[in-house]
Amino acid sequence: MKADGKVLMAHGSGGRMARDLVEKVLVKPLHNPLLEPLDDSATMPFSGRMAFTTDSYVVRPIFFPGGDIGKLAVCGTVNDLAMVGARPLYISLALILEEGLPLSELQQVVASIRQAADEADVRIVTGDTKVVDHGAADRLFVNTAGVGLVPEGINVSGANARPGDAVILSGSIGDHGIAVLSRREGLSFETELVSDCAPLAGLVADMLAACPAIRAMRDPTRGGLASTLNEIAAKSKVCIRLDERNILVRDAVRGACEMLGFDPLYVANEGKLVAIVPAGDASRVVEVMRRHRYGRDAAVVGEVLDAPAGRVLLKTAVGATRVVDMLTGDLLPRIC
Amino acid sequence: MKADGKVLMAHGSGGRMARDLVEKVLVKPLHNPLLEPLDDSATMPFSGRMAFTTDSYVVRPIFFPGGDIGKLAVCGTVNDLAMVGARPLYISLALILEEGLPLSELQQVVASIRQAADEADVRIVTGDTKVVDHGAADRLFVNTAGVGLVPEGINVSGANARPGDAVILSGSIGDHGIAVLSRREGLSFETELVSDCAPLAGLVADMLAACPAIRAMRDPTRGGLASTLNEIAAKSKVCIRLDERNILVRDAVRGACEMLGFDPLYVANEGKLVAIVPAGDASRVVEVMRRHRYGRDAAVVGEVLDAPAGRVLLKTAVGATRVVDMLTGDLLPRIC
Repeated sequence: MKADGKVLMAHGSGGRMARDLVEKVLVKPLHNPLLEPLDDSATMPFSGRMAFTTDSYVVRPIFFPGGDIGKLAVCGTVNDLAMVGARPLYISLALILEEGLPLSELQQVVASIRQAADEADVRIVTGDTKVVDHGAADRLFVNTAGVGLVPEGINVSGANARPGDAVILSGSIGDHGIAVLSRREGLSFETELVSDCAPLAGLVADMLAACPAIRAMRDPTRGGLASTLNEIAAKSKVCIRLDERNILVRDAVRGACEMLGFDPLYVANEGKLVAIVPAGDASRVVEVMRRHRYGRDAAVVGEVLDAPAGRVLLKTAVGATRVVDMLTGDLLPRIC
Repeated sequence: MKADGKVLMAHGSGGRMARDLVEKVLVKPLHNPLLEPLDDSATMPFSGRMAFTTDSYVVRPIFFPGGDIGKLAVCGTVNDLAMVGARPLYISLALILEEGLPLSELQQVVASIRQAADEADVRIVTGDTKVVDHGAADRLFVNTAGVGLVPEGINVSGANARPGDAVILSGSIGDHGIAVLSRREGLSFETELVSDCAPLAGLVADMLAACPAIRAMRDPTRGGLASTLNEIAAKSKVCIRLDERNILVRDAVRGACEMLGFDPLYVANEGKLVAIVPAGDASRVVEVMRRHRYGRDAAVVGEVLDAPAGRVLLKTAVGATRVVDMLTGDLLPRIC
């Protein structure tokens, strides 16, 4: 591999160049005993309730303040597993490379995949690499699927919210979407905007230890907090009422949103979670969250009501109440 | 969903249009009880040795004689699980859609995903959809990851071939690669060329029932039979000697290869497998395979020797012996 090399079509062929790319650029930096056999599937023992998820990542640009497409992919899949209460264990990694992609960029992404996997204590156990001709993909697309173990007695689902429950948010909203957009569009702000991209499984483990009865969890990615809570309200057939005063939006994000005409409630996050918990457990859960690096700004931001079912309402800072609907169209394309 | 509709950026947004697309075009045709909760991960009980694999599909064109990118994705992942002896159970499905893709084509692909999943007796339990702007991807890329269960006592790996073993091939080679290429390039031949794309887990189950001691299995996809056997020879540190007279190449494929200057040994298959089995079990395994619809032309095509280790040799029809090396470059890009 030459330091100034680029991805060629032959790197996707199944021949010697493909093998070299896989061995040197992927397997070596991602090495672990389960990946090593390089058979058509990885195999390992598993016993219990399995969680299984997948996400493809098409973020543009692939490098942004606070992360890159590799870190995003690992964190996104780790978080999807954590949101059903699972302990993430194994990750698959499939890359679609555009011919001409600098190998140095691929290596940088793989290094951050390794770093994110190590932080989240998951192993990349199987993978795939495809190359498409120049112009047939935009640089690099990543897919990660993940397998995790749901501890016994845990039953977290978007359908489980009940009237009376409390709604907890782990921190500020909108950081990821605005950070990616600012890099993409070359916007600059007084304060640097940084993606919140982070693996939340450790935070979730602490939360479940404090409150095994957590009803629902979601990471509010595409569509933001508003869309995520609309999904939970619809699935659980409840109303969710937010209190705007308790929802943290960083000044830089608020300023950017005002300038661009965005509502932070709809802007993507990649290192935040919303949890619905029995009201009596809320303060204990918040306390535990605040001790974790990814939950320092955790707060109760709303409550679950019985009606109007399927609706999300917002009590604004000035005391009015408005409906927080799902977006019909598109706010920020390709932020994950 | 209008019948003449197209994929729009908003279908990837996380908002209402995205939800509609997922519900109507994906969840409804793929419906099963494990997919239904639509939480961030699917969950299900699992106990035993787990196989886990992933593949992205970028085949061009997405429809070809004998299949399409959807059937290919399901079969490919089912086969990767089967090649370690696993019974395929659960599949994840992640789509990257190019803005402007006709919804009717997406629906056709999803229908064939369902059909292939039903034939292979696997369930699509989790998924993801991303949309990229026109020109940032080539129509439709598919990723499938899969989870399967390896029965107790089965230990199939590319590293397990031993001198004295027999090499079995399940049927003719080169059909998939040539079928895709002919459609892509608008070539026509006297006999229609059809991809062999098929799920092989049923065939493998029959083979393992007849011979639990199968050493190694691979489906010779990208890079063809030659590359696959080179991998096994390298991993197992053995020599594999093929007998050209026993390797079936259909006339239409042979003719196309001669015209195009390809060696069928390097052309991709998507419904064939090569198995390394103890010599004493070979005839029983072949017999069982021939009773299966995807193994009717199964035959012993070679043997495993101790030296030269890592090499694949071919005894040609005229009695000479030549080295079958890995390709360095690229024969047929984007055939899977």
